[in-house]
Amino acid sequence: MPAAFKTVAVVGKSDAANLPNVLDQVVGILRRRGLAILMDALTAGASKTPPDETLDLDDLPGRADLAIVVGGDGTLISCARLMAERGVPLVGINLGRLGFLTDIPADNFEPAIESVLDGEFISEPRTLLAGAVRRGPKTLFATLAMNDVVVSRGAMGSMIELAVTVDGEFIYTLRADGLIVATPTGSTAYALSSGGPILHPALQAIALVPISPHTLSNRPVAIRSTSKVEITLVRGVDSRANFDVQAYWRLEPGDVVSVSAAARPATLLHPKGYRYFSMLRQKLRWNERTA
Amino acid sequence: MPAAFKTVAVVGKSDAANLPNVLDQVVGILRRRGLAILMDALTAGASKTPPDETLDLDDLPGRADLAIVVGGDGTLISCARLMAERGVPLVGINLGRLGFLTDIPADNFEPAIESVLDGEFISEPRTLLAGAVRRGPKTLFATLAMNDVVVSRGAMGSMIELAVTVDGEFIYTLRADGLIVATPTGSTAYALSSGGPILHPALQAIALVPISPHTLSNRPVAIRSTSKVEITLVRGVDSRANFDVQAYWRLEPGDVVSVSAAARPATLLHPKGYRYFSMLRQKLRWNERTA
Amino acid sequence: MPAAFKTVAVVGKSDAANLPNVLDQVVGILRRRGLAILMDALTAGASKTPPDETLDLDDLPGRADLAIVVGGDGTLISCARLMAERGVPLVGINLGRLGFLTDIPADNFEPAIESVLDGEFISEPRTLLAGAVRRGPKTLFATLAMNDVVVSRGAMGSMIELAVTVDGEFIYTLRADGLIVATPTGSTAYALSSGGPILHPALQAIALVPISPHTLSNRPVAIRSTSKVEITLVRGVDSRANFDVQAYWRLEPGDVVSVSAAARPATLLHPKGYRYFSMLRQKLRWNERTA
Amino acid sequence: MPAAFKTVAVVGKSDAANLPNVLDQVVGILRRRGLAILMDALTAGASKTPPDETLDLDDLPGRADLAIVVGGDGTLISCARLMAERGVPLVGINLGRLGFLTDIPADNFEPAIESVLDGEFISEPRTLLAGAVRRGPKTLFATLAMNDVVVSRGAMGSMIELAVTVDGEFIYTLRADGLIVATPTGSTAYALSSGGPILHPALQAIALVPISPHTLSNRPVAIRSTSKVEITLVRGVDSRANFDVQAYWRLEPGDVVSVSAAARPATLLHPKGYRYFSMLRQKLRWNERTA
Repeated sequence: MPAAFKTVAVVGKSDAANLPNVLDQVVGILRRRGLAILMDALTAGASKTPPDETLDLDDLPGRADLAIVVGGDGTLISCARLMAERGVPLVGINLGRLGFLTDIPADNFEPAIESVLDGEFISEPRTLLAGAVRRGPKTLFATLAMNDVVVSRGAMGSMIELAVTVDGEFIYTLRADGLIVATPTGSTAYALSSGGPILHPALQAIALVPISPHTLSNRPVAIRSTSKVEITLVRGVDSRANFDVQAYWRLEPGDVVSVSAAARPATLLHPKGYRYFSMLRQKLRWNERTA
Repeated sequence: MPAAFKTVAVVGKSDAANLPNVLDQVVGILRRRGLAILMDALTAGASKTPPDETLDLDDLPGRADLAIVVGGDGTLISCARLMAERGVPLVGINLGRLGFLTDIPADNFEPAIESVLDGEFISEPRTLLAGAVRRGPKTLFATLAMNDVVVSRGAMGSMIELAVTVDGEFIYTLRADGLIVATPTGSTAYALSSGGPILHPALQAIALVPISPHTLSNRPVAIRSTSKVEITLVRGVDSRANFDVQAYWRLEPGDVVSVSAAARPATLLHPKGYRYFSMLRQKLRWNERTA
Repeated sequence: MPAAFKTVAVVGKSDAANLPNVLDQVVGILRRRGLAILMDALTAGASKTPPDETLDLDDLPGRADLAIVVGGDGTLISCARLMAERGVPLVGINLGRLGFLTDIPADNFEPAIESVLDGEFISEPRTLLAGAVRRGPKTLFATLAMNDVVVSRGAMGSMIELAVTVDGEFIYTLRADGLIVATPTGSTAYALSSGGPILHPALQAIALVPISPHTLSNRPVAIRSTSKVEITLVRGVDSRANFDVQAYWRLEPGDVVSVSAAARPATLLHPKGYRYFSMLRQKLRWNERTA
Repeated sequence: MPAAFKTVAVVGKSDAANLPNVLDQVVGILRRRGLAILMDALTAGASKTPPDETLDLDDLPGRADLAIVVGGDGTLISCARLMAERGVPLVGINLGRLGFLTDIPADNFEPAIESVLDGEFISEPRTLLAGAVRRGPKTLFATLAMNDVVVSRGAMGSMIELAVTVDGEFIYTLRADGLIVATPTGSTAYALSSGGPILHPALQAIALVPISPHTLSNRPVAIRSTSKVEITLVRGVDSRANFDVQAYWRLEPGDVVSVSAAARPATLLHPKGYRYFSMLRQKLRWNERTA
């Protein structure tokens, strides 16, 4: 058993009506255990009970040793990007339908959270991507992504042309709506909609998934996550690099988007009994028959 | 045999170095036959020999009884949208690689054009789409499309939500990058890249092809071309309706894009011996083996 | 209103425990209306109440002017193949999950059946395929199919090679696990699993859907249902032609499988209010969200 | 530089007319270097010059420290399955079109072979699969596969039902034509035709690719190659387990096909300058445009 958690960041973001109640219950559990409770201003505003301290979202990772996220997968992803650099593990309570990442349902979350706080959990590292946009010698933008880095066409509707290398080796010139570079986590999100494979989270891999490629044999490719992918915009108006659909950068021809695994993964904590494929089966309705 | 052609519009658009030469040869053939030659200003500027008359592009359909298009598929499509309303048939000379539509190669086009002018041709009607954007009771924009009408997300990268009806019957609410409504002509273009089926041009059908749909069972659907499709933008920032990637309209939530077959098809003329599947086999390399 | 039904064939086939009860209720409804009731021996054996007459399954179409099928889609399909030649319409009661074809649920079927018997129904013709196997000048086998005619590899696991023509025009040589020729009805069955499009039943079309094709550009093609497809087995051990997975014929290289629309469609009767896309939405869970 | 090769097995299998000539040239190169030459009887029969010794194919791996394979990918795969257990590296000369594995073209193979014999090569391990069929406590059959282990339906045409576990964790019950378990090597073969992703050979992964799955969300899944996959035939007539389409075993319901990475990979030697993606680009025509 690792040393118990002492300071817990609680981050809640949702339009769901039960957010205040769930936050209240979370605070109650933490208080009974005498743990220090941190929140960002937004969460503190939604919470019935105030935290011990309200901090800027960006300052939470430096102070907390656990993050409890109340919301959906999108909320957990934005938190995970923050927490990963400091190695703060995350546990997600879902206020809506079960998420791929937030696997504890709000309507009966207490036993799961109590277990996690007792040290009874499955710890699962999830690869993050470090993405950057380079123009000539200059890095214009850099950020982390938990799902994917996407280079895609803008609103004008015509294909863009991308030159792609992996570890300096030329792969192809792609004419398409875009290219998704996805982690295993992202492999069940946008990449799946675009025809990509599901990558098990324990697989040290990233997937290159073309979006509506002009050449039909431009099929998804999975490579080692230790590889460095570089995508040069050869041709395209209003093209952008997009990170988890949470940050983006507008590209000009010649710009290079580089993607590689981040130095530190995000760490998700799941209640004992969690199984990846069981979650997937439920989310993708594998266990149901339609005819 | 129909009455012979008397007035021929020649439209050439291409960056290819041989455009002036090909135009010159086309003019030579027409002159020798004593046919009247019309051009738009751009083509006249590129031609070594002047036409009998230079007109606005928009005025050509009212005067010509045949259009010879020199360029690629994109040029032919933009011409076809003009010519279709007046029923002027088109024949396409391709300056680059063989096109899906411009099936006469520039390096030996004379016999094919002579045959067509002799009345020796295969006439092939191609369904066009009449697309319109409606906001409340008001039609904001209307145009024809030969390939497709596409409603898609803008540059921001997040999915849009569309409600789709066919002849007033609700089909689905689609969460996706967008939806392609394609003619048989368009079925080998963008729709094919997005997973759509190939529709034979003689099939009176249109295909609804979702782009990267969130729900994996949202597969392409082919319906009768006599049907009227209506697509309402339910949710989406910077979304657009796009017609053959040649015209577009920016949509706001609540806007309705309606699509139905145009009253008149475009008419393509092919040299005798033309066969659709033979062209397709060559374009899609069906007759080649990769292993 | 067409002349009312006088003689009704009831065909029930299912392992479901409630088959006898449902048959009993159907017989009750028909009796109260004074209609003549026919059954095949198998159905009569399962029914609590005897029919007016028990006939060979093959003799039902010549005597009945309506068929009520109790079972699943497979049962309806095998019935439809029989009934179509005589133009006997069918209505399907589903004992299990809702079917694509048997759209009246067993747990509340009486009002729907009463309506149909009152002449209140939507009549929907469904294209059938006439399939035949030819060896040289000799036709070895011929039958109808409601879903599909499939030429596929046998158990040995290696690809087969097929030469395909449409109306005598050569399409391609296909190296694949097989080729599915599907009606709109079959487009939501095996063809859909193999990547084919959904064809609306009112579309006079058939789809050619390759199964695991070696060449990635060998995508599904939809053609007019008035076309005649011929598939020659060029190479392949233990290959078979398969009709609705209900009949098959073992092929030798050189054998030709020909497929065209049958002279008469099958006719399905649906209760008023039936809508194709509504059924599809439910079967394919289009109206549900997974995340 | 590793110790130079001393004993070389030459295995040639092809219908190509130039097999004897190529074998003759290979023998010439080896003779000039004073290396011992082994052949199996079939190759010796095709060779103009006799080897130093003719052995059973199965005895070659125990004696050779290099295998030169003359033929196509199929020939190399069957050799690799033999050689892998003894760690004998392979180099492939292709007599026909360039292979995915046999990347030295026959028309100019001498410099490449000379380089390899000089010790100038790129050594590439390729994961093999160890597959076995178990009935109750008894293992009925076991073999290696370089491309894939496939459990699929037989000739009767109806779906089979498979229960799949990974490392003991239940994944899904699959209703489909079958399931492909593919190595990265196999990911560009049958698995690609069935919609699977391309896995880079350096990725320690295997892909589970359903063949025409009934449930559309049953998409390809990539897992770690250290995982053990078990596939139980739940329902299915005439179903088989198939190993590289070179060996198969007929399954009965309840039989379990287990698949895991073999203890030793096969080792391919490529001439300096070989690049995986360059080969792929050529094979899949990524560098060509079709429109």
